[in-house]
Amino acid sequence: MPVDVDEIIKKIGLEYDAETGIHIHNKTRIPLTIYYNHDEEELVYLDQTKLPFEVTTWSTKDWRKAADPGIKDLIIRGSQAIGVAGGYCMLLAAVDTARANNDPQSFLNELEEKAKFIADARPTAQPLPWAVSLTMNAANKSLSKGMRVSEIVEVIRDMANYILASDLALNAFTRKEIRNHLKNGDIILHHCNAGLAGSYGAHATCGIEEAYADGMDIVLVSHETRPRSQGFKITVWEALRCGLPVIAITDGMTNATIRKYGLNKAMLGVDRVTKDGSVANKIGSADAASVFHEYGLPFYYCTSYSTIDSATERGKDIPIEERNVEEFTYPYRLEAEDKKRRGIISADALNEWPPKEQIVAGRPESGKVMIYNPAFDVTPPENITEIITDIGSFRPTQIRKLTLEKINAKVRENLREWGLTSPLDDL
Amino acid sequence: MPVDVDEIIKKIGLEYDAETGIHIHNKTRIPLTIYYNHDEEELVYLDQTKLPFEVTTWSTKDWRKAADPGIKDLIIRGSQAIGVAGGYCMLLAAVDTARANNDPQSFLNELEEKAKFIADARPTAQPLPWAVSLTMNAANKSLSKGMRVSEIVEVIRDMANYILASDLALNAFTRKEIRNHLKNGDIILHHCNAGLAGSYGAHATCGIEEAYADGMDIVLVSHETRPRSQGFKITVWEALRCGLPVIAITDGMTNATIRKYGLNKAMLGVDRVTKDGSVANKIGSADAASVFHEYGLPFYYCTSYSTIDSATERGKDIPIEERNVEEFTYPYRLEAEDKKRRGIISADALNEWPPKEQIVAGRPESGKVMIYNPAFDVTPPENITEIITDIGSFRPTQIRKLTLEKINAKVRENLREWGLTSPLDDL
Repeated sequence: MPVDVDEIIKKIGLEYDAETGIHIHNKTRIPLTIYYNHDEEELVYLDQTKLPFEVTTWSTKDWRKAADPGIKDLIIRGSQAIGVAGGYCMLLAAVDTARANNDPQSFLNELEEKAKFIADARPTAQPLPWAVSLTMNAANKSLSKGMRVSEIVEVIRDMANYILASDLALNAFTRKEIRNHLKNGDIILHHCNAGLAGSYGAHATCGIEEAYADGMDIVLVSHETRPRSQGFKITVWEALRCGLPVIAITDGMTNATIRKYGLNKAMLGVDRVTKDGSVANKIGSADAASVFHEYGLPFYYCTSYSTIDSATERGKDIPIEERNVEEFTYPYRLEAEDKKRRGIISADALNEWPPKEQIVAGRPESGKVMIYNPAFDVTPPENITEIITDIGSFRPTQIRKLTLEKINAKVRENLREWGLTSPLDDL
Repeated sequence: MPVDVDEIIKKIGLEYDAETGIHIHNKTRIPLTIYYNHDEEELVYLDQTKLPFEVTTWSTKDWRKAADPGIKDLIIRGSQAIGVAGGYCMLLAAVDTARANNDPQSFLNELEEKAKFIADARPTAQPLPWAVSLTMNAANKSLSKGMRVSEIVEVIRDMANYILASDLALNAFTRKEIRNHLKNGDIILHHCNAGLAGSYGAHATCGIEEAYADGMDIVLVSHETRPRSQGFKITVWEALRCGLPVIAITDGMTNATIRKYGLNKAMLGVDRVTKDGSVANKIGSADAASVFHEYGLPFYYCTSYSTIDSATERGKDIPIEERNVEEFTYPYRLEAEDKKRRGIISADALNEWPPKEQIVAGRPESGKVMIYNPAFDVTPPENITEIITDIGSFRPTQIRKLTLEKINAKVRENLREWGLTSPLDDL
């Protein structure tokens, strides 16, 4: 039975909003980050490069553009969301390929080439190649069943819808778990932004936002999250949009906010969970966890089962990506420009800070500065209260006991509760 | 015997540098932040509003301008430095007043009015009114001794020089204490900027810089120090200028830097020390101290005796100044401008973030954001290893035993070692 993705979207409470150009939630007003218009064969992304200054969508019928710039230039971002995007990029590619190919095998061969391009749009996000190979597997299985090209396209369509529907359904489970960890009067810290990292209502913020919309008395505290400031830009935008009262603080104000406003709980997203119960997340998370641990306050990580990495033993085994220093220095280049325009510094003053020729990549020598810009840090299990997921909540020490078998069984059970089974199973 | 301030400047290792327009240190190349040219009756400030983009001085012969914009608009900043500035503003005012007043009493009356204007240039900095009243006391005592106007001006000159010379001498004692806490291989965290807060070589960074210049193997780690980013702008500038290798990190990278680079020591400046051994310092200091405490790493505060507040019992009794939110939002206004210019967002997009009408000062209601911007936070004594000062190094528990009498005796002893006695004592 094909996945009725519109039914799932409706069930969650999302309705099409002409102003935004995509569905928004009837309580939180938070939009979907991705939608596929099957009548027009058009893919729609919430344009995250314009947030928070402008709320608008970006659309394309071109599979290549959907991947680049669509995925590559972060119009859609967040690991789960770009997994969903990968599925629909494959659908656009299949529709395009079917136009000039009646022969199933040559259709598949051509699609395989396009699949590689799509899967490579972002180097590190696991869900993207996962979603692409899921659609290719479905296409290959369809071929082996003797299907015609037009039928294979419909199988790919169904798989792309299934990937979106599963993401929507599983996020709803995480939000339900989050609700069970909230109480009236909570002042809750969030770091970076997890809410727009999935199709709708991914980890942490949306669960808090829905609880507030339902009448719970909650205040959100958002870390700025330098260097990319997703907390100040996206999380504050989310909170303002849905009406959740929010306090914006810099990344170094955790102690001060605990003392001044009774900040009493932390709920953050997750990049990766290792077997020892360590969590890798956006840089700055571990420092906040250290402060919370000192005060004995609960520190939760909220995520999907898909971030549990059963192949990696310890947090310290996770390789840490280091990002471009321009993310760090961008505001200072703007400040130099601004101060020149306003005559505060002379035309001969520096145009940036620090001067490019004094920045080095490795450990600095005399007269040099290294700008350290790791994408994330690792919180040790001792500083984590629970890891809240779409398949239940776990103390860090319980992660080791989650076998792949147990995880998959629970995921299937949860999806069945929403009437979702993989199109691969039906072939 | 009048204070020979040029002798002290020379003794420290500072020499006039035509390019900068003020004296710089022969080893660290760090400039004086303030100098008075007695031949020209002109006051020179290192213009800190232009740093790090431009290194230049700002000069005036006008006592009023020396206070406003000089002190008021932060051309000179840092509590000790503006104390020194207050003394020289009084000298400029005295020189000006003497031009039209031969009568000592009317001279004093007019100077008293100007003194009020100078003392009010910054509302919260204690050393400014302290320096102003020190010069007025000297002037009043001179009057009572029957001195002529021209003689009173020379007493004020001597007092202003004494305030600068004392600051220079006491900072040298702090640097010596800091040296005793350094060892080869240290990777040292600094937060905000303390180096330019005095006339030369105030707390923490300059001590480290001089040790490096003398051949010690040290790397500095500088927190960005949002929202005003004095760490990324001023401390990195200082380190690059003197050749001390420096790693710039955001305020949330303390854990990550300990793990990746073996960050092993912290040396920060101080706003205020209370009797229980708590330290108030730039916002973000307390979070770093929490992380260091978790790892069992030494965390030092470096300061002058003048920040020890014997009248305040506990850290939590310190009122916390909250600053303008524009400090926080400035980069996001620049980002909106930049993205409009580059066509990334449309002309109709927001010009700032968050929208002004959604920002509130107190606890936020629905649809509102409070931007919390405290100037400093309080580190509890448990998280402080030692407080390093110009009158010795103390564990937090020892602060209570420092009576005003003991402090003053040690200060006098230290100043005598540099041949400095107060002009008030000579009158």
